[in-house]
Amino acid sequence: MELKTIKKLMEKFANRKEQLYKQKEEGKKVFGMFCAYVPIELILAGNAIPVGLCGGKNDTIPIAEEDLPRNLCPLIKSSYGFKKAKSCPYFEVSDIVIGETTCEGKKKMFELMERLVPMHIMHLPHIKDEDSLKIWIKEVEKLKELIEKETDNEITEEKLKEMVDKVNRVRALFYKLYELRKNKPVPIKGIDVLKLFQFAYLLDIDDTIEILGDLIKELEEKVEKGEGFEGKRILITGCPMVAGNNKIVELIEEVGGVVVGEESCTGTRFFENFVEGYSIEDIAKRYFKIPCACRFKNDDRIENIKRLVKELNADGVVYCTLQYCHTFNVEGARVEEELKKEGIPVIRIETDYSESDKEQLKTRLEAFIEMI
Amino acid sequence: MELKTIKKLMEKFANRKEQLYKQKEEGKKVFGMFCAYVPIELILAGNAIPVGLCGGKNDTIPIAEEDLPRNLCPLIKSSYGFKKAKSCPYFEVSDIVIGETTCEGKKKMFELMERLVPMHIMHLPHIKDEDSLKIWIKEVEKLKELIEKETDNEITEEKLKEMVDKVNRVRALFYKLYELRKNKPVPIKGIDVLKLFQFAYLLDIDDTIEILGDLIKELEEKVEKGEGFEGKRILITGCPMVAGNNKIVELIEEVGGVVVGEESCTGTRFFENFVEGYSIEDIAKRYFKIPCACRFKNDDRIENIKRLVKELNADGVVYCTLQYCHTFNVEGARVEEELKKEGIPVIRIETDYSESDKEQLKTRLEAFIEMI
Repeated sequence: MELKTIKKLMEKFANRKEQLYKQKEEGKKVFGMFCAYVPIELILAGNAIPVGLCGGKNDTIPIAEEDLPRNLCPLIKSSYGFKKAKSCPYFEVSDIVIGETTCEGKKKMFELMERLVPMHIMHLPHIKDEDSLKIWIKEVEKLKELIEKETDNEITEEKLKEMVDKVNRVRALFYKLYELRKNKPVPIKGIDVLKLFQFAYLLDIDDTIEILGDLIKELEEKVEKGEGFEGKRILITGCPMVAGNNKIVELIEEVGGVVVGEESCTGTRFFENFVEGYSIEDIAKRYFKIPCACRFKNDDRIENIKRLVKELNADGVVYCTLQYCHTFNVEGARVEEELKKEGIPVIRIETDYSESDKEQLKTRLEAFIEMI
Repeated sequence: MELKTIKKLMEKFANRKEQLYKQKEEGKKVFGMFCAYVPIELILAGNAIPVGLCGGKNDTIPIAEEDLPRNLCPLIKSSYGFKKAKSCPYFEVSDIVIGETTCEGKKKMFELMERLVPMHIMHLPHIKDEDSLKIWIKEVEKLKELIEKETDNEITEEKLKEMVDKVNRVRALFYKLYELRKNKPVPIKGIDVLKLFQFAYLLDIDDTIEILGDLIKELEEKVEKGEGFEGKRILITGCPMVAGNNKIVELIEEVGGVVVGEESCTGTRFFENFVEGYSIEDIAKRYFKIPCACRFKNDDRIENIKRLVKELNADGVVYCTLQYCHTFNVEGARVEEELKKEGIPVIRIETDYSESDKEQLKTRLEAFIEMI
């Protein structure tokens, strides 16, 4: 019972590398990025291409561990390894890679990576206050200047407006998808939505819009017919799950759960909050709000999770941390506590990209899903 | 051949708890702190007491792991555990605890700790640029206001000048100690200097000045007589070694090395650079320069290590990382590379507060010291 649109998504993805090289041949510049904090509106307005970078595979970790400590998050090691091994087409096609001072593992890894590829680092401050916002607005302005310089294209007000509207359209479509997932049965599996988020970082934005539009139509029909998936409804929260890292979602859906939402950078943190206006400041403000655990006093994330559980009619929460990710790991204690206060079942999982913990995780998830 | 002054230091330390409670009874406020970034001049100028907090023992880690992940640096876990167990007199006597956004482990741990003790968090930005310095100056101003409010004492220009001069005097004395350690044989063992740094965070500043003055005289006499310690001269660099955590220095000096310097927060990062002027800005600027690995592009630390090796006539460098400390761990790769370029022998060690790796470390350090 595969969704037609997901089949199409996979085709688009399979074709992306070729399309990207073609776009580059036509003279477009490519900006690689790691993170949901990069304001892609600006890159698009510079007639350039934003593209997410690989970092979801175990294969590239050994080469990374030649330079990086073993005790470091697999996403960071895998990303670095992909660049070092030159095995990620998105890295290879990037003219410049945009990093940010989110978590310290990435921040310090960038000091090594910038010897392998031209990089530009955006300073995202630790705190969510007015002075920090001012720094962030300046950083977004600096990014605009960099893009203009690299692309030799002026980012006009008109062009920026067009792209703010376009990226907001993607956000609106993801919001619609979320609405549809409130239904019982839920018309789409979590694994398909995860792929959609993963590929939204990689695909051409017009393709993403097309796919999302088609998907929503297809899902609306299913909802009307009452078709979909039953099972314990799970909200996932925690570290991003970039392409290649589907382990937890697959396991949940193997043992009788169905993922109905993900509070994640491959999830709500990717699309929540519209850019409300057309200035650099408006853009900066939207991204500044992203409730990543790397920020100090990230209470809005906790509120968000509670709200999502209710809105999506979730039966329980799976809190996923990548091994050695201090920020999501430590914040997990408070999230767990707050959820328990509300009587919401929660299980915390720490994992990496290996297969070795799969059976053990399966047993734990099975028990959790039976219990709730 | 124990130094008289070190005996005196131990006595002062043994008496510190009682003295602190007495000072508190007399109406002085106590400000606990974790880190070399806290400008103690301001606390002293408010007629209050700055005191370092416990965090060097394994014993308090199990209770911390009830709330914090196992995969977190022992210093952070131990600190949190000390507060939770109420087993650190300096924590218990603190009216307020000053944290800072240095590493993310501490930053996120503070979100839990502030439920156990009143805290004030200073925002130290990731980057070493002008905008970040402006934020830091504001943070130092805010700290001044907080101290005035908490102590009900006005921090006058006069008082501030007095305390800037006093803390600079401590720095000058530590510089002198460093000069003396350049001698062959070196007149003092590393383990004694480590205790001096550890206790400098804990003792009354007047006692620290007295001890340092006495020690310098004692060491000058020894140098004149040509007395001291021979052995492979080691510079230690990396994570701080707070009171209780002497493992690596002890091991180095057991296997035929002698520690002649420490690029550490219990070392040069504690005293290098004077406050050059008497304004808040002057104070802020001095602390902003501290080359902690938590900062992005911390190249001055690498330059510092190379300079120290030369100045102290070190034969080799032991790079110490506390387990799961991403910043010092990742930065270690660049430090190692740069030292090797200069032909300086270096060994990298990752350890925690347990005794379990002691034999293995001893073997590695023995081999390293034989080799150099």
